[in-house]
Amino acid sequence: MKVGIIQQRGSSDRDDNRRRIVEKISELAKQGAELIVNQELHDSLYFCQTEDVDIFDLAVDISDDSKALAPYRKAAKENDVVVVTSMFERRAPGLYHNTAVVIEKDGTVAGRYRKMHIPDDPAYYEKFYFTPGDMDFEPIDTSVGRLGVLVCWDQWYPEAARLMALRGAEILIYPTAIGTSAADSEEEQNRQLDAWMLVQRGHAVANGLPVITVNRVGHEADPSGATEGITFWGTSFVAGPQGELLYRAPRSEEATAVVEVDMKRSEQVRRWWPFLRDRRIDAYAPLAYRYLR
Amino acid sequence: MKVGIIQQRGSSDRDDNRRRIVEKISELAKQGAELIVNQELHDSLYFCQTEDVDIFDLAVDISDDSKALAPYRKAAKENDVVVVTSMFERRAPGLYHNTAVVIEKDGTVAGRYRKMHIPDDPAYYEKFYFTPGDMDFEPIDTSVGRLGVLVCWDQWYPEAARLMALRGAEILIYPTAIGTSAADSEEEQNRQLDAWMLVQRGHAVANGLPVITVNRVGHEADPSGATEGITFWGTSFVAGPQGELLYRAPRSEEATAVVEVDMKRSEQVRRWWPFLRDRRIDAYAPLAYRYLR
Repeated sequence: MKVGIIQQRGSSDRDDNRRRIVEKISELAKQGAELIVNQELHDSLYFCQTEDVDIFDLAVDISDDSKALAPYRKAAKENDVVVVTSMFERRAPGLYHNTAVVIEKDGTVAGRYRKMHIPDDPAYYEKFYFTPGDMDFEPIDTSVGRLGVLVCWDQWYPEAARLMALRGAEILIYPTAIGTSAADSEEEQNRQLDAWMLVQRGHAVANGLPVITVNRVGHEADPSGATEGITFWGTSFVAGPQGELLYRAPRSEEATAVVEVDMKRSEQVRRWWPFLRDRRIDAYAPLAYRYLR
Repeated sequence: MKVGIIQQRGSSDRDDNRRRIVEKISELAKQGAELIVNQELHDSLYFCQTEDVDIFDLAVDISDDSKALAPYRKAAKENDVVVVTSMFERRAPGLYHNTAVVIEKDGTVAGRYRKMHIPDDPAYYEKFYFTPGDMDFEPIDTSVGRLGVLVCWDQWYPEAARLMALRGAEILIYPTAIGTSAADSEEEQNRQLDAWMLVQRGHAVANGLPVITVNRVGHEADPSGATEGITFWGTSFVAGPQGELLYRAPRSEEATAVVEVDMKRSEQVRRWWPFLRDRRIDAYAPLAYRYLR
């Protein structure tokens, strides 16, 4: 399968963000991409750097009639590609989610995933904006395969990747928005980026599945002025089912790429390393506890 | 904490294997090591390359009076160090385990862990020899900390690392015996070694804990002649709680090392990345199922 990734800078001009993505979908499809993955909350800036009730105005309907999805549905259909989008969902007044919506090649909505793990750190005040997902870790069936779509903070949780694998996901996909703070030393910034790749490539290995991660790039100021903002570290990547790196985007520039992923390799790898065979399910029930002391 | 690791070639002469380890324990302790970790089944060759009932003769008593533990209890006491050993346990006639035994600085047994995940692959016929552990994923308390001791195949399972973390482990420790088959291409051999490091460094990240992995090294022939034997890939390593590599041993030679691990860093890292805070325990119960389709 040929996978297209779109790593771009966000701006406050949503129409422009959408226009640039739609153009890139068309370019990537012309290069053969069958599945195109976008970064987290690609239509806007990463607005969680400050807590402001007016920002909920950015949230959108994600029903099949959604105006926010329309350009992506059109682009998917015109270019005959599956597209993974990431939306700030307005579900009801006072109830908002961080939701990935997958569009089928014919422009219909294939499925949705509401981000389950919600962070809250200085400059990433997501618990203010996003209600934790209530659609479980459920892969989305598409014409290019059964997609284990997760979002950003989920990427640190082996449980999320494993549950997607146990429910038959054929690939793990993470739209994400993560970067460094100028308050950290360069050494610490590099350690964080390395840790982020390590843990996700680890999920590939543990589950014998390829992983696609698409991150935003560039600096976004903190509107409150409380911090120096976030420098999103790009470095979108694709790994195979042994965690082997198939593609790595630059750290500071926009990037698009078409990457070939051999979807048949997973079964070969899982025959060599049959981790699912030997799981000690008799001893795993305590994983559903907060802590065991 | 200063951690000593002993990566060595195995031989069929058990007395010689033990003598060399005891010497190295003394050397590493003189260099300041407070905790010394050995490779899996360090007293013998890796005997699982073939299925032979006579090999059960190698299994040993691991009670407090164990003759097999005696040299390590003596070395721990004389050198005032905690020692992680790996034994082929004879529990009863026809009932054998692959068991890590941790010796306290005073020479007493601090605790035992029976390998929970048991592999079975060509040349790694462990299901023939080892009954799966029945002591759960339970850390072992010692004077140098609460040790999350796991063994080899366990290293591929995020569940094992997580359960140790949830039970308060302060460090993850993996005695192991893994290598390459000459039947695989050099590229495939390297991919396997990389995957092995990735998944374990991933456990460090996901749990905010340091990891110590000690592997055997060198080629061991297959007594049955069915395969070309195993070339154990050494590469013992120590990683910090962001998966950062603190030490990496050579791939083809014996090695000892003393590595400083900052045991206070985990809490700092977990404050930055509070993964335990945000686990979706309401959605994790299905992890205790074999598959969900």
